[in-house]
Amino acid sequence: MIETSPELLNALRAAVPGGVLTAAEDVIAYGFDGTFYEHVPPLVVLPSSTAEVVAVHRIATERRIPITPRAMGSGLSGGAVPLGGSIVLGVARLDRILAIDEVDRVAVVQPGVITARLQAAVEARGLFYPPDPSSLKQSALGGNVAENAGGARALKYGVTGDYVLALEVVLPDGTLIRTGGRTVKNVTGYDLRRLFTGSEGTLGTITEITLKLLAKPAVARAALAVFDRIDDAAQAVTAVMTSGILPTAIELVDNFTMRCIEENRPIGLPLDAEAILIFGADGNHAAIVDAEIAEIERIVRAHGARDVQVAHDEAASEKLWTARRSISPSLARRRPNKLGEDICVPRASIPAMVRRVREIAAEYRLEIPLFGHIGDGNLHPNILCDKTDREEMARVAGAARAIFEAAVALGGTLSGEHGIGLLKKQFMELDVGVDALRVMRAIKDAIDPLGIMNPGKIFPEPGGADSFSL
Amino acid sequence: MIETSPELLNALRAAVPGGVLTAAEDVIAYGFDGTFYEHVPPLVVLPSSTAEVVAVHRIATERRIPITPRAMGSGLSGGAVPLGGSIVLGVARLDRILAIDEVDRVAVVQPGVITARLQAAVEARGLFYPPDPSSLKQSALGGNVAENAGGARALKYGVTGDYVLALEVVLPDGTLIRTGGRTVKNVTGYDLRRLFTGSEGTLGTITEITLKLLAKPAVARAALAVFDRIDDAAQAVTAVMTSGILPTAIELVDNFTMRCIEENRPIGLPLDAEAILIFGADGNHAAIVDAEIAEIERIVRAHGARDVQVAHDEAASEKLWTARRSISPSLARRRPNKLGEDICVPRASIPAMVRRVREIAAEYRLEIPLFGHIGDGNLHPNILCDKTDREEMARVAGAARAIFEAAVALGGTLSGEHGIGLLKKQFMELDVGVDALRVMRAIKDAIDPLGIMNPGKIFPEPGGADSFSL
Repeated sequence: MIETSPELLNALRAAVPGGVLTAAEDVIAYGFDGTFYEHVPPLVVLPSSTAEVVAVHRIATERRIPITPRAMGSGLSGGAVPLGGSIVLGVARLDRILAIDEVDRVAVVQPGVITARLQAAVEARGLFYPPDPSSLKQSALGGNVAENAGGARALKYGVTGDYVLALEVVLPDGTLIRTGGRTVKNVTGYDLRRLFTGSEGTLGTITEITLKLLAKPAVARAALAVFDRIDDAAQAVTAVMTSGILPTAIELVDNFTMRCIEENRPIGLPLDAEAILIFGADGNHAAIVDAEIAEIERIVRAHGARDVQVAHDEAASEKLWTARRSISPSLARRRPNKLGEDICVPRASIPAMVRRVREIAAEYRLEIPLFGHIGDGNLHPNILCDKTDREEMARVAGAARAIFEAAVALGGTLSGEHGIGLLKKQFMELDVGVDALRVMRAIKDAIDPLGIMNPGKIFPEPGGADSFSL
Repeated sequence: MIETSPELLNALRAAVPGGVLTAAEDVIAYGFDGTFYEHVPPLVVLPSSTAEVVAVHRIATERRIPITPRAMGSGLSGGAVPLGGSIVLGVARLDRILAIDEVDRVAVVQPGVITARLQAAVEARGLFYPPDPSSLKQSALGGNVAENAGGARALKYGVTGDYVLALEVVLPDGTLIRTGGRTVKNVTGYDLRRLFTGSEGTLGTITEITLKLLAKPAVARAALAVFDRIDDAAQAVTAVMTSGILPTAIELVDNFTMRCIEENRPIGLPLDAEAILIFGADGNHAAIVDAEIAEIERIVRAHGARDVQVAHDEAASEKLWTARRSISPSLARRRPNKLGEDICVPRASIPAMVRRVREIAAEYRLEIPLFGHIGDGNLHPNILCDKTDREEMARVAGAARAIFEAAVALGGTLSGEHGIGLLKKQFMELDVGVDALRVMRAIKDAIDPLGIMNPGKIFPEPGGADSFSL
């Protein structure tokens, strides 16, 4: 634990007037994120300007004090949980939308802007910011960029990183750099934008983001397909994805997840079915989007869907999406904790991965509701648990390892959209290999030679236990 | 110049049997690329396998001999020109398409595969690899990835880097790493794929590439619009790009460029007009694509186009594109040399950039045909010259600097798709700033501590003259 010496507090209070929290009841909320970790920081600094962020970095560098940058702390990998006595540098007060430019088609934002707020602001002008992490009403763009967040619409539109045109970043020592610009094409030197995007606060603090915008599609439709057999659902996904149609989203909700939803608040899901798939489609021409939905219906019926509901307007679409949106609160009511994964596998491996998750749940005697962005192979097996039950947590650790090993063996990866953070760091070598990991470490050391940025994240600890064993 | 000692030659010949060139008449072709530089290498190694590339790297590392990786050498930034006594490591023999997977929607290729060959192979299966650098019949995918090449269709479909899912890279010391995979989403650790993509051979040699494929659009259309005033053409581009339509391409060809084309081989271009724009549009539904082309026609006529020709089939489209495709050979006939730029500016700055290039041509009394991917602001002012004329070359240097300064002042960047290489390295600080450049340098030193990979590229030399002064 870092000593919060009077000298340090005075320096931070002078640099960030009115923005230093030290009272136990104030700082406790900054020790959590969307996972089950808790590491209360010694203090929290909430700058209101880039200059104040720079000042905090300088103070921390001089004193070798670790910093964990944090936006809204809704992440699912432990990335924002402060370890090693880190102080928290919260960017929630940097919450201005600085520009929405309709000609250049960009938005310039501070990192504390809530994702849904930006989406509403650009949509009011007929523009579109596609990335839609499920947390979009809570999460902020700084966190989305730091974790390179995905979302359901990533299937058609890509992830957060595909929209980052420029970043302003405060390097560990307080140096302010800008990388990228307002142009869509830019190959001037190494791609630092992409390096900082997804670097989970381990290389610096993001203070400004320039995002690419699209024109808002005029029409959106949805369809919900019911499958007696989950294996048929997985096969249907592969069939749709090789048909030439590119849906905005294909979401899986399995039977166990449906039961959790209905237990929490009944919405009439078909509990006698093994799985449902929810499809989205959008475009500028209603006739085309309707034809695509009809083709999706034809394909899924040919692959065993027993029932298909189609939503032809926004209200009906929202109703179909309710099932997907109510998963997280429903799971939280069933058991005290969950270990949410976001493995991603190639399309051809989707049916095998679905089968393997079900086998692992049986092997380890655990409840593992399975849902997620099945269209791009990015699945969310959520292992339900009680973190105070040591025997159960040992089985959770075994099941998590088995899921990671299966994903990698099937040609996939540990994380499609949540990042590695604390939760998956001990599995990095399994996925990327010892040599690529060494390259990542060399980059980290080159940019953060004192190692003060968000310690304990991404990189495995030698001899460390599975980091979700608590 | 490196001593090609008998010991070195023996080691390389043992490692790469039948793949070492030393005769002056053999190696001279490896001293050029698409620019006007010439630096003949002491020797050329042409491995036929990844294992041979690894062996060459090990031999070079042991002896501290610099390596310049090279695919087809058609680049436009000097990136593949061997400096500092570098040996050339050519990957042309690594030319196999290893897999085209219709379910995972990926192609796996070696770096020596010609871009057009891959496109034809995937299109034969109804798939689509969009990046289309003008050199696509000569350039290879390894070079496209190393320079993060663009092309006309980048307007709708993005650049090479947007399709790189995984890379196999031989690090300077011969360590082989793999980064990425077959999944579209992947946020497992730092994004090394994007770091190596566009790193111009300064961090390692690429030996295998996994590329994302799309479904081939069923319909493509083109339109050619004639403008009496180039300023109207630039304004029309901005109008189309804010209309909600996303063309595959918008290409500018100015009057001077048209005259060069007609001088070389007449195709009936309107020489009394200041500029033409060529538009592409594609999709799966002919009615929609035709409606988009009609809307483009309406917009450009409202912005001063005096004539618009529309191509409704592939043969007619090809005819409209002939003008764009015949530019390079035409310019080569007009003057012995050209300095081809690829500055990129935000959309709102396109009209100002077009005006500024014309002013600079007048100020420096130079012929600067202007053409390029105007839809995304990525313009190719080509300064025609004779590199043996010292007085003219001083004016060329002045004009090039003025163009770079104008692009950066308008919020743009030095390079949209060619890379920095040797040609633009002295302007890096002007664009990215001293601190971001220091971060790039730190990454270079971390991955290539001996500095043997492609020396003299990307990073400016302290006190170095404009690197195109020869």
